Amino acid sequence: MTSSTEITPALDDSVRVAGGVVRILDRRVFPETVSWVEAGDAEQVAEAIRAMVTQSSGPLFAAYAGLELTALQVAGLPPQAARERMRVAGLALESARPTNGHPREAVHRVLGDVDAALAAARASGADDARATAALVEAAVESARSGAQSYRDRSRRLGVETAALLPDGARILTHCWMDTYLIEFVRASREAGKRFDWVATETRPYLQGARLTAHTLAEFGEHVTLITDGMGAAALAPGSTLGPIDALVTAADRVSLDGSVVNKVGTLGLAVAASAFGVPFYALVQAPDAEAPTAADIVVEERDPAEVLHTLGRRTASTLVTDAWYPAFDVTPARFVSRIVTDRGAFEPSRVGEYYAGAAR
Amino acid sequence: MTSSTEITPALDDSVRVAGGVVRILDRRVFPETVSWVEAGDAEQVAEAIRAMVTQSSGPLFAAYAGLELTALQVAGLPPQAARERMRVAGLALESARPTNGHPREAVHRVLGDVDAALAAARASGADDARATAALVEAAVESARSGAQSYRDRSRRLGVETAALLPDGARILTHCWMDTYLIEFVRASREAGKRFDWVATETRPYLQGARLTAHTLAEFGEHVTLITDGMGAAALAPGSTLGPIDALVTAADRVSLDGSVVNKVGTLGLAVAASAFGVPFYALVQAPDAEAPTAADIVVEERDPAEVLHTLGRRTASTLVTDAWYPAFDVTPARFVSRIVTDRGAFEPSRVGEYYAGAAR
Repeated sequence: MTSSTEITPALDDSVRVAGGVVRILDRRVFPETVSWVEAGDAEQVAEAIRAMVTQSSGPLFAAYAGLELTALQVAGLPPQAARERMRVAGLALESARPTNGHPREAVHRVLGDVDAALAAARASGADDARATAALVEAAVESARSGAQSYRDRSRRLGVETAALLPDGARILTHCWMDTYLIEFVRASREAGKRFDWVATETRPYLQGARLTAHTLAEFGEHVTLITDGMGAAALAPGSTLGPIDALVTAADRVSLDGSVVNKVGTLGLAVAASAFGVPFYALVQAPDAEAPTAADIVVEERDPAEVLHTLGRRTASTLVTDAWYPAFDVTPARFVSRIVTDRGAFEPSRVGEYYAGAAR
Repeated sequence: MTSSTEITPALDDSVRVAGGVVRILDRRVFPETVSWVEAGDAEQVAEAIRAMVTQSSGPLFAAYAGLELTALQVAGLPPQAARERMRVAGLALESARPTNGHPREAVHRVLGDVDAALAAARASGADDARATAALVEAAVESARSGAQSYRDRSRRLGVETAALLPDGARILTHCWMDTYLIEFVRASREAGKRFDWVATETRPYLQGARLTAHTLAEFGEHVTLITDGMGAAALAPGSTLGPIDALVTAADRVSLDGSVVNKVGTLGLAVAASAFGVPFYALVQAPDAEAPTAADIVVEERDPAEVLHTLGRRTASTLVTDAWYPAFDVTPARFVSRIVTDRGAFEPSRVGEYYAGAAR
């Protein structure tokens, strides 16, 4: 068997800073087409995030890359102008999508490290050129270590999740868990476990059919694709697919009351899993300390025209003009078995304990 | 307002006997393309049913049309040869799809009436030519009145369903209720009620996006399209779509224990509706007297390649080889509020009373 740690799925390396631009793998058309969108500055990175060139963990890596690129671009400016340019870049990035909190975290980290570096430079009597150089170095280091930290925490999350599942378990998943999925597979294999996967296709963007199923296949995992309406039939007793041992999805956000905000469709699967006694594990590195309840999280609605089309082709009757496209839904804690974090698995009602007595 | 009874949606007239063939509207490509498949005999009609040229109520009308065409084709044969040809045609039609019971009903009706007509002709001393003529006349009459009876019973079903819902109710529906939908809309309007519709697209064939939404739009009803994964989010309290008053679907079959066999995806919607206190009304003219439980109903599995494609185009990663496509799922009675029949609405556990003390 090939060691799983040697396998790098295409989507594990989908944002790069090179040649004075950020290159972002276009997930809207992958894997049918392998195409890279080039962003010349942070605002173009933000626009690519808004346009769904990348999603899930992608905006985190893209935001870090946008901040790294901005740092390289401000190297010739006086420190205050460089700082201001970093701030404006951060504003663009963190407002690209309202529900995905990753770019905001990236911006807070890098700007915090930039400010610390600037203060240290000033305190040591550095001149403007040295202060700007310190800013650039701090920003680049912060962006790169931030991305690496995200991978490391995802690996710990993967280790915690693998511990909940027996070897050979059949897992139903929805949408695309991205870095969580990749590190979960790696952690599972290191633990000597292999799973059998059932993936929903996840309309309208078909992330399940295109990204999840593709990445699992790259790893050599066995995956069976279903449409979004088949989840309950798969979870029900006596399914011809055979029993599902767990529903496992990522969570875009988890509020402190244990509500899971994730790709629309998660709620229906969670309710069905609960009805049929199948555990639901929602994966997030950490709950959202600023969201006491799900009501504190903005649930983005996207262009309903996507529902009328499939991969750019009109698939609904042309007489139909109205559609509804909430990008996420909210699964109340009572339908969630465990919130799995990089600090272990919590009962949903106790996920606030993630922060108890430990620095974040 | 235009009287709804004056409106004939395209799908309300989708099977015709004319010019020595049965013409069947091809629902696989409608409404993007309006194309008719011509079947020259009952076996070709059966093949069209098997190939999903038509589905839902379509196979019933197609089976009656196939039997009518066969009757016309045997007019020159001796009566026993004509009867044998009718029997063979019936065998082909009733075995076209295992879960859809409509062709079987059509065949039983027409062959029963044919046998009665033959016996009467023999009893009256008719010669072979007159006996065959009686057979042909009985078969044509039986097929036509059978189709009309199906429409009439669907109208009564529509009247019963409309009585359960207030004017202005918002209804979530799944897949394509066909004649039930058309007669339900007509009955509702005659009762002075209009509804607001939410339709799932219903992958893989997209019957909701293409057939249901199109037909409702032809009627001038307001319909909002959603993907199959959005049903629970629509049913949950606080949805930005506004509250759903009822989940209403057809049932391909209902067993005597109140289990609903319908298009895959119905189960997930029913479980979510139950969890969020929204009633689920399943429409069927009559429960299946030969199916004490859902285990007595064969649930057809169809070509999983359909899940990997959308309207003929590959939409899943080409690395993915396995998919699962159960055409139907089984919703246990505990998730069903009422089974609505042409004899009224029953609690699921009491649907067997449909047959109590009344001839079918």
